[in-house]
Amino acid sequence: MIVRDRPSPLRLFFVMQGSIVPRIAPQIICIFILGCLDLLLHRYYPAFFSGLTAAPFALMGLALSIFLGFRNSASYDRWWEARKQWGQLVIDTRSLARQVNSLMPEKGETGSLAARKITRLSIAFTHALRHHLRGTDAWSDIGDFLDHGMIDDLKRSRNLPDALLRQIGQELGRAVHSGLISDVLYRPMEERLTSMASVQAACERIHTTPLPFAYNLLLHRTAYLYCFLLPFGLASTLGLLTPLVSAIIAYTLFGLDALSEELEGPFGTSAHDLALSAISRTVEVNLRETLDEQDLPADLTPDNFHLC
Amino acid sequence: MIVRDRPSPLRLFFVMQGSIVPRIAPQIICIFILGCLDLLLHRYYPAFFSGLTAAPFALMGLALSIFLGFRNSASYDRWWEARKQWGQLVIDTRSLARQVNSLMPEKGETGSLAARKITRLSIAFTHALRHHLRGTDAWSDIGDFLDHGMIDDLKRSRNLPDALLRQIGQELGRAVHSGLISDVLYRPMEERLTSMASVQAACERIHTTPLPFAYNLLLHRTAYLYCFLLPFGLASTLGLLTPLVSAIIAYTLFGLDALSEELEGPFGTSAHDLALSAISRTVEVNLRETLDEQDLPADLTPDNFHLC
Amino acid sequence: MIVRDRPSPLRLFFVMQGSIVPRIAPQIICIFILGCLDLLLHRYYPAFFSGLTAAPFALMGLALSIFLGFRNSASYDRWWEARKQWGQLVIDTRSLARQVNSLMPEKGETGSLAARKITRLSIAFTHALRHHLRGTDAWSDIGDFLDHGMIDDLKRSRNLPDALLRQIGQELGRAVHSGLISDVLYRPMEERLTSMASVQAACERIHTTPLPFAYNLLLHRTAYLYCFLLPFGLASTLGLLTPLVSAIIAYTLFGLDALSEELEGPFGTSAHDLALSAISRTVEVNLRETLDEQDLPADLTPDNFHLC
Amino acid sequence: MIVRDRPSPLRLFFVMQGSIVPRIAPQIICIFILGCLDLLLHRYYPAFFSGLTAAPFALMGLALSIFLGFRNSASYDRWWEARKQWGQLVIDTRSLARQVNSLMPEKGETGSLAARKITRLSIAFTHALRHHLRGTDAWSDIGDFLDHGMIDDLKRSRNLPDALLRQIGQELGRAVHSGLISDVLYRPMEERLTSMASVQAACERIHTTPLPFAYNLLLHRTAYLYCFLLPFGLASTLGLLTPLVSAIIAYTLFGLDALSEELEGPFGTSAHDLALSAISRTVEVNLRETLDEQDLPADLTPDNFHLC
Amino acid sequence: MIVRDRPSPLRLFFVMQGSIVPRIAPQIICIFILGCLDLLLHRYYPAFFSGLTAAPFALMGLALSIFLGFRNSASYDRWWEARKQWGQLVIDTRSLARQVNSLMPEKGETGSLAARKITRLSIAFTHALRHHLRGTDAWSDIGDFLDHGMIDDLKRSRNLPDALLRQIGQELGRAVHSGLISDVLYRPMEERLTSMASVQAACERIHTTPLPFAYNLLLHRTAYLYCFLLPFGLASTLGLLTPLVSAIIAYTLFGLDALSEELEGPFGTSAHDLALSAISRTVEVNLRETLDEQDLPADLTPDNFHLC
Repeated sequence: MIVRDRPSPLRLFFVMQGSIVPRIAPQIICIFILGCLDLLLHRYYPAFFSGLTAAPFALMGLALSIFLGFRNSASYDRWWEARKQWGQLVIDTRSLARQVNSLMPEKGETGSLAARKITRLSIAFTHALRHHLRGTDAWSDIGDFLDHGMIDDLKRSRNLPDALLRQIGQELGRAVHSGLISDVLYRPMEERLTSMASVQAACERIHTTPLPFAYNLLLHRTAYLYCFLLPFGLASTLGLLTPLVSAIIAYTLFGLDALSEELEGPFGTSAHDLALSAISRTVEVNLRETLDEQDLPADLTPDNFHLC
Repeated sequence: MIVRDRPSPLRLFFVMQGSIVPRIAPQIICIFILGCLDLLLHRYYPAFFSGLTAAPFALMGLALSIFLGFRNSASYDRWWEARKQWGQLVIDTRSLARQVNSLMPEKGETGSLAARKITRLSIAFTHALRHHLRGTDAWSDIGDFLDHGMIDDLKRSRNLPDALLRQIGQELGRAVHSGLISDVLYRPMEERLTSMASVQAACERIHTTPLPFAYNLLLHRTAYLYCFLLPFGLASTLGLLTPLVSAIIAYTLFGLDALSEELEGPFGTSAHDLALSAISRTVEVNLRETLDEQDLPADLTPDNFHLC
Repeated sequence: MIVRDRPSPLRLFFVMQGSIVPRIAPQIICIFILGCLDLLLHRYYPAFFSGLTAAPFALMGLALSIFLGFRNSASYDRWWEARKQWGQLVIDTRSLARQVNSLMPEKGETGSLAARKITRLSIAFTHALRHHLRGTDAWSDIGDFLDHGMIDDLKRSRNLPDALLRQIGQELGRAVHSGLISDVLYRPMEERLTSMASVQAACERIHTTPLPFAYNLLLHRTAYLYCFLLPFGLASTLGLLTPLVSAIIAYTLFGLDALSEELEGPFGTSAHDLALSAISRTVEVNLRETLDEQDLPADLTPDNFHLC
Repeated sequence: MIVRDRPSPLRLFFVMQGSIVPRIAPQIICIFILGCLDLLLHRYYPAFFSGLTAAPFALMGLALSIFLGFRNSASYDRWWEARKQWGQLVIDTRSLARQVNSLMPEKGETGSLAARKITRLSIAFTHALRHHLRGTDAWSDIGDFLDHGMIDDLKRSRNLPDALLRQIGQELGRAVHSGLISDVLYRPMEERLTSMASVQAACERIHTTPLPFAYNLLLHRTAYLYCFLLPFGLASTLGLLTPLVSAIIAYTLFGLDALSEELEGPFGTSAHDLALSAISRTVEVNLRETLDEQDLPADLTPDNFHLC
Repeated sequence: MIVRDRPSPLRLFFVMQGSIVPRIAPQIICIFILGCLDLLLHRYYPAFFSGLTAAPFALMGLALSIFLGFRNSASYDRWWEARKQWGQLVIDTRSLARQVNSLMPEKGETGSLAARKITRLSIAFTHALRHHLRGTDAWSDIGDFLDHGMIDDLKRSRNLPDALLRQIGQELGRAVHSGLISDVLYRPMEERLTSMASVQAACERIHTTPLPFAYNLLLHRTAYLYCFLLPFGLASTLGLLTPLVSAIIAYTLFGLDALSEELEGPFGTSAHDLALSAISRTVEVNLRETLDEQDLPADLTPDNFHLC
């Protein structure tokens, strides 16, 4: 995620931070050079270009734009849905913490302990889900929030966040059985757990099911063929502007193509991915505040305009 | 938010209130002047323009329009979702107030007091959320609705609205514990709290996660390059109309670009932002009416057609 | 709302009922006359038109169509969402009536009376919400459904539908307190109330928050400038067809512009607004049927194809 | 609903089943003949066509396509939402049957009888809703599923499905009162009823509120004018292909126009309407299976590729 | 489902895995040959092409692109909704298993047995639903998870997944009756069942209700006619590039047409269908882990980049 700073219209032309340009620069330069070669060709073999106009490219360009537009919307929707799911996780963890900490401690020390345990397991779930989606090791972040007894069990599981949810579920089950909370009060807490399971499954869905690959192939190929043929169509009408205009069109099309591809899988740590670390930190701070802890870590701040 | 007045079609050309024109005037004037220079150039160096037509610009213009259209929809959706979330807050606060005030007072004075406290904390939450999103200080608005005992606690919190929700949660927990309400009646109230937490998290999501910055860069650059090149393409066919038509096209494209940027972050106090102050005032009036208070503040009315 | 009659394709050209034509006729005639003047101009000053083609207008037309399309979708979504909210109100009032009338009367006369009171207050809420949104006086429609005792209270409120919901809420609170219904049975009824509050807040949202005014300005201005310039671009290629084609294009663009504006605020009583009176009447009939009343009013039938 | 058979690309040109062609054939032939006449005219009065090109039609065609596309999406959404609502009805009826039949019979014979009665009323509701939406008489289909005692009551009601829901509601109310089910178990059943009421109200909404009629007028008129003018614009460039290309374009535009109109009201029995009879039959079979009945009717199979 | 590997831009031109090309190769080659024939024709009968330009094809191409875009979005939405439904199934089965296994075993051996039975029936439901949608035989996959007593009953049912849900429902009914779980705890479990019924009905909806067939006919016919006429329009301006450009445009349009058709019915086992086997395997592993079973099957891994 990039932190916005709203520079002046002119300065926006020179910002590189958060730009997709570095990734597609080789292709754009290619098209620019091709445009220059076309100009030479046009000078020495004008017959080849006789009658060539931009009109047929309008036919391709139209279909291409509409389909690039479709893929872009679909990728953006995945990115935004992923963000909404993590927003839902913030809601669920905060609400679960609020519920257990306002109801259980009334029953004395055992209640306070259970509430504390559930709250800390929720923090662990949040960190574990992040690592699960990024394919990194969760233990350095979650170790502090777990009791020693459960660690072996958790290490055996193939799906750590799911196993953590089961631990919270068992804690709630014990609370019901020992009379800490009534059956009726169990329900809103269980609903939070189901909602957390829902966040996890939705993130797994986005992570494991990319857009059908044929879209990428189809659009990628059409976009490249289009941009490589374009200078031939423009040379006779645009003259010296041909390389420039070709490069601008290539910039727009390749840029959207590349950006769509980045947004499609939003759980990485690159410039356009979601700031999952910052969100997890926020959850950790909010929940530990609920437990009246004092030594809270600072919120994550953007490092060179980039939050990960 | 602008209050609509439906002037005649002709008068709409001269309305400045709520228009995006002031913000983009410099750029439009630039394009107009550029068009005039092109006309001169065209007169003295017609060879440069020989063969230049508008056709290649149709290629760029198409892609640009589709992608501007996408960004515009995405920004508008954020703005409208933010408005829906505040509408949800109206529902939640009204419903919570209705529930506590129709159920608790039946249990005598303690019940009335608790109902009153929860209702007033809901008003405070609404004001605090507005200030939280606008980055302003909440205490002048919420001080009257809080008990002295809780102020120190709240001031320590890094997230004031969340801390206020926890206060309401604890009040409800106490009500359950002391038998004011049964476990069963606790649930619809707790659901309102979870929904209020959900409004807050959704607003925080919209506030902290702008559209990927690369969209802004990509569209901004393409739109500017397009508009600066356009007069060259139009000069040979449009003749004297070139500056005018270029300026109109620039007005449309820059206007949507600028408007999308404003709607993207809807929690400010400028002309196109949401009227959060007016909504919070409505909540305050509705809830204090529920408490049978008499000296209610007036609804906010538009000041120079502008509600903030 | 217009009642459909599916005339033959040819007859559709002459239907005026439900058409937007009367509203935009002056502008279309204007464009037609302008087209005729252009033809004359073209005859006597052909030099002015030399080189002018329709191509540059394609650039404007494209952006304009996409953005008009966006605004049209946004307005239609508001209209359709408003209709869905009123559909939800039908669900809520019917379901609440079904619940109270199948559960409370089992407890004897007091139960029957409470069920009847709540059902009649729901009818009043429906009528009051309609009047609230249309800015008309509700008392002639709702007086019959209220007890005398509550009328003063209601008249003091700034928001009549909200006050009626509070009355239903208090009635339910009393029913719980007096043992007519258990805490558990209170919940599905309370959920209906929250849903009715949600319908009201959603309608208020649509009513008080129009589309950002800058959209109207931007699109309105561009559409008018486009249509006034268009005949100049068409005259050299279309010849005598210029006025006709210009007028048709103006009809499409102005028509959509005007229709979008009408749909944006769907709570009035004009031809394209929602048939709130008919829906409220249906609710009244359904609910009074639940109470076994006999002298039910007739359903509203379209008056000159127009239901309001 | 048409049952798919995926013929080869070539055969698809000759399939008439499920095609919209028969309905719009007269108009297409008209355009084809007009194209031929234009060719003759072009031969003998070429001066009339001098300068006429397809370019101005691109302006109209663009706006027309975008707006036809909008209406098409809106109609399709109505059709698909209607199908979703009937899918929801399948869920609700199956779940209600599962709930009553797994909980009530444990209480002995009275419980079994009540469960059976509620299940059969649900079947009746499904059939009645279908007939309600299609404007046909329901009694031949639902008579078998009703007790004699309730028939008079039902016949008096203006809204048969709503009256059937009330009957189920009263049955549930009696079950609660007589202790067959607890208050707590009443709730998931009541939720199914509310959801069934919601399906009914949504279908009534789609049925009684067509798209604003002005859309139909606007698009219909523009499409016809466009297609009748088009051959004039094409004759000078396309020559002998003019009638063919005009007819193809007319086929696409009139086809979508006609298809959108059919999908807009999806509750009829024509080729593109929803297969409500087949869905109701499925519900009947599933629910009677729940009651362990043996003589179940066969599923409906497509008759000449058409399910109604 | 294809597993992504992000090859370099250049290599993407030669990837066949997951490409739609093999399916539409004959048609593309056809268009290419047609383009070559046109070139010959153009050489020997240039009079036929005199005046033919690409402009009229822009009119068709535009409408075609917008409508192909619509159908593509609709098909993709069906595919993605189907994936969401299976994601919901993961949530429901995991949550139901968590609930029964954290609450029932506290009641001793009978509770453990019931929890185990319900968990295993949930696995069977998942496999059965997959086979139900794919039209294959479920018994080899589900036999191990069923008790012998229930097999005859299940074999008689016309809808196996629905019958399995009823079995879980009866198991829950017995648990309530025998006091294993209270009425209150029954509800969250029953909610999972209703949600599983909802997944099933939604998948059945997508499976049995394809897009209206007239869309396929309309778009298919227009796309083919367009591509077969296109070389005639391009020959005079594009010269030798005609066959290439025609083939590229045909590739884009036929490719999207074919891809939309594949995504429309997402429950098969071809390259673009959903990986239902892998998802069911994940559910089986997660649920058996909940039961502390040790000999869990491996996750399914892509076979030649293809997961089914």
